[in-house]
Amino acid sequence: MKTFQLSEKLLKKIADLIQAKKNSPLKKLVKDIHFADMAEIINELNLDEGVYLIKLFDSEKTSEILTELDDDVREKILKRLSVKEIAVEIEELDSDDAADILGELSDQRKEEVILEISDDSLADDLKELLSYEENSAGGLMAKELVKANENWTVTKCLKEIKQQGEYVTRVHSIYVVDDKEKLIGRLSLKDLITSPSKKLIKDIYIPKVDSVNVFEDGEEVAKIMSKYDLEAIPVINNKKQLLGRITIDDIVDLIKEEAEEDYLLAAGVQGDVEADDSIIELTKARLPWLFLGLIGGLGSVFILEGFEEVMSHPSYKALFFFTPLIAAMAGNVGVQSSAIIVQGLANDVVKGSLINRLLKELGLSLINGLILSLLTIVFGLATNLPIELSITISLSMLCVIVVAALIGTSIPIILDKRGIDPAIATGPFITTSNDIFGIFLFFYIAKIILGF
Amino acid sequence: MKTFQLSEKLLKKIADLIQAKKNSPLKKLVKDIHFADMAEIINELNLDEGVYLIKLFDSEKTSEILTELDDDVREKILKRLSVKEIAVEIEELDSDDAADILGELSDQRKEEVILEISDDSLADDLKELLSYEENSAGGLMAKELVKANENWTVTKCLKEIKQQGEYVTRVHSIYVVDDKEKLIGRLSLKDLITSPSKKLIKDIYIPKVDSVNVFEDGEEVAKIMSKYDLEAIPVINNKKQLLGRITIDDIVDLIKEEAEEDYLLAAGVQGDVEADDSIIELTKARLPWLFLGLIGGLGSVFILEGFEEVMSHPSYKALFFFTPLIAAMAGNVGVQSSAIIVQGLANDVVKGSLINRLLKELGLSLINGLILSLLTIVFGLATNLPIELSITISLSMLCVIVVAALIGTSIPIILDKRGIDPAIATGPFITTSNDIFGIFLFFYIAKIILGF
Repeated sequence: MKTFQLSEKLLKKIADLIQAKKNSPLKKLVKDIHFADMAEIINELNLDEGVYLIKLFDSEKTSEILTELDDDVREKILKRLSVKEIAVEIEELDSDDAADILGELSDQRKEEVILEISDDSLADDLKELLSYEENSAGGLMAKELVKANENWTVTKCLKEIKQQGEYVTRVHSIYVVDDKEKLIGRLSLKDLITSPSKKLIKDIYIPKVDSVNVFEDGEEVAKIMSKYDLEAIPVINNKKQLLGRITIDDIVDLIKEEAEEDYLLAAGVQGDVEADDSIIELTKARLPWLFLGLIGGLGSVFILEGFEEVMSHPSYKALFFFTPLIAAMAGNVGVQSSAIIVQGLANDVVKGSLINRLLKELGLSLINGLILSLLTIVFGLATNLPIELSITISLSMLCVIVVAALIGTSIPIILDKRGIDPAIATGPFITTSNDIFGIFLFFYIAKIILGF
Repeated sequence: MKTFQLSEKLLKKIADLIQAKKNSPLKKLVKDIHFADMAEIINELNLDEGVYLIKLFDSEKTSEILTELDDDVREKILKRLSVKEIAVEIEELDSDDAADILGELSDQRKEEVILEISDDSLADDLKELLSYEENSAGGLMAKELVKANENWTVTKCLKEIKQQGEYVTRVHSIYVVDDKEKLIGRLSLKDLITSPSKKLIKDIYIPKVDSVNVFEDGEEVAKIMSKYDLEAIPVINNKKQLLGRITIDDIVDLIKEEAEEDYLLAAGVQGDVEADDSIIELTKARLPWLFLGLIGGLGSVFILEGFEEVMSHPSYKALFFFTPLIAAMAGNVGVQSSAIIVQGLANDVVKGSLINRLLKELGLSLINGLILSLLTIVFGLATNLPIELSITISLSMLCVIVVAALIGTSIPIILDKRGIDPAIATGPFITTSNDIFGIFLFFYIAKIILGF
């Protein structure tokens, strides 16, 4: 199998059939398209066409398509569906996906939809799920799971899980609870099949079971599941009662989303935007960081003005030609240092004290800086720059590189210690502050050495 | 559960017990530590201590620890183990992990280890797995799976899978093959339990089964599995014969690694390095991009020299104070544009023609550029800059922003069309080229307007 590649041709064919209201050839055309791919198609259609297509399918397929749509497209389509229609879709979904969709509705519509849901226990489950923070274990978990009481026999258990299993898409483990619903262990389906039918569950279950608290942060859950290679993890409350479970597919989505956000943030793009978003949304995501860059750049105007008199010196004025080089070096080195630290903090490999970390960075930046400075001296010789000027520029650049590396290393660590996401420090923030600092340092050191 | 936090205290206690060769308190101390956490501990110990600890455990735990160690630590530890010792570990592992470890040995040792393996079918499996590219489906898959022949009865199938299941850590699906080993469908364990015992598999299996070709690219497999929420996917050869299966935990690792590499690449750090790597390795990863920045910066020295005469003008010389601002703007805008495109290309959301994409970016950069230019004029007024100079600077900056955005957008798209990873375009590459281009454009436009 290959991932689906949406062609302009298919898109046009679908749009034409919708326009002509030719339902049966339309249904035939899209019958074998996976719901994740149908969502891609609807993302590209206009709203009327999308709503038409959504209403064409039976609710089992529609509900799955809804979960896969782009947030903004889904929001618009949900606005065009009645409370009853949404309730029908919700009932088809796993509770975690259902709660995610409900969470996007206004408070009033949310309540109206829940009132429309005929299955009371589902309605209760959804209300419970909606009460948790979106990015907590509670917000990620689904209520569907297969559990066994420790006092059941193997036969009873097999019968029960056949029933429970009907509502659960994938059975990973059977969780074992006591009479007070406290999670005490797990039972693998494989073990269950191989045990004599009269044995009690309490005699065959595995008492060791990993779980996370319902208030645990989603990122931490992702770390636990990926580190320990778990495909599902049960969620418990403070009384250790079993509330739900989180499956790896939700974690894969979370990991991908966070990686994307960090990547964009490092490039000075804030928030969860995509190339296909509107110009307004993209501007909102980009302008704040550009504004920061502007402030920084205007700051460096003042610094350079302070060294205006250098311009009248016949050979020292060449220092001004080197400002973009210095700013670029300060920025590049700083971004490298901070990115490595941010990544290390995310993977828990940044250990030891800040001092040790800075000493290592000092060594590293000295090596890089010396090599680059020597090359700059060679450049100076080749372009007939006065030798004392070449040496001054190289020495100042070396200092700038070292300082930029130390700033790039320490800011993320300090932010992290104060509980602020260090990812914010990479990119424009570091570049801008290092630009200003680097340029000032460069001219200041040059001034001391050359004595102007 | 929480992720394990390695404390200096625990590390010291372990090191002390190793030094004193107190094996039984040492074993007791680490007994309940998960192998992924043990690997973290060994990553931090020195080599002798690490080897000592590795040899202390039974091979079941050791082998799992080996798979989780940092690459460089594992390489060093493997060098200290005999061929026989490695073979014993290999036999404990799933075939995909075993092949990964074997793949890190020299060709000669690899063969020696395989000769030591007593189980011939495992040795054959490993030789097969080693023949595939590391990042292909074949390189990712494990040979362990549970399969059923279509002509078996439910009873026979249950018996067979109990046997097969002993060697398979997690049973996701039972794959159904015909007499020629061709994959024809799947069977869920749940369905199998609920069917009458005399039914034939061919009457109850689900003929729809997703699979990937053994030569498929690993990134594409990751895309397929995460898009379609698959927890395992069977791998077939060109004759559609079932060869192995890939599970989601391997894909989670792949997704994380690739996200990290892209993140670091965008910050100008090449390759798979971590904060804890040696200074030499980190220098190798960082210096090439800094060198590129140096070349770019020296290039801009030439450009600025070309506008040297502006320095003698009483008020136009202020243009030089604005070069860091212009370079920063060109760099920031370019990096933003390219990051959004790179992300979009990875998610297949960059559709439509290059022209449409550039038109959108034109609109976006005009909005951002106008706002920033107006602010710059305000700044000029506030700092008593001559009004024609303020306007010139703002207009040039607007042009630079627009051009930088267009360059940032088109380079990744062009690279992608030529089959080059567009991720390489973000970061230093775009910053450096936009620096030079931006500075040149800024002075050139200013020259035209002001007529110096």
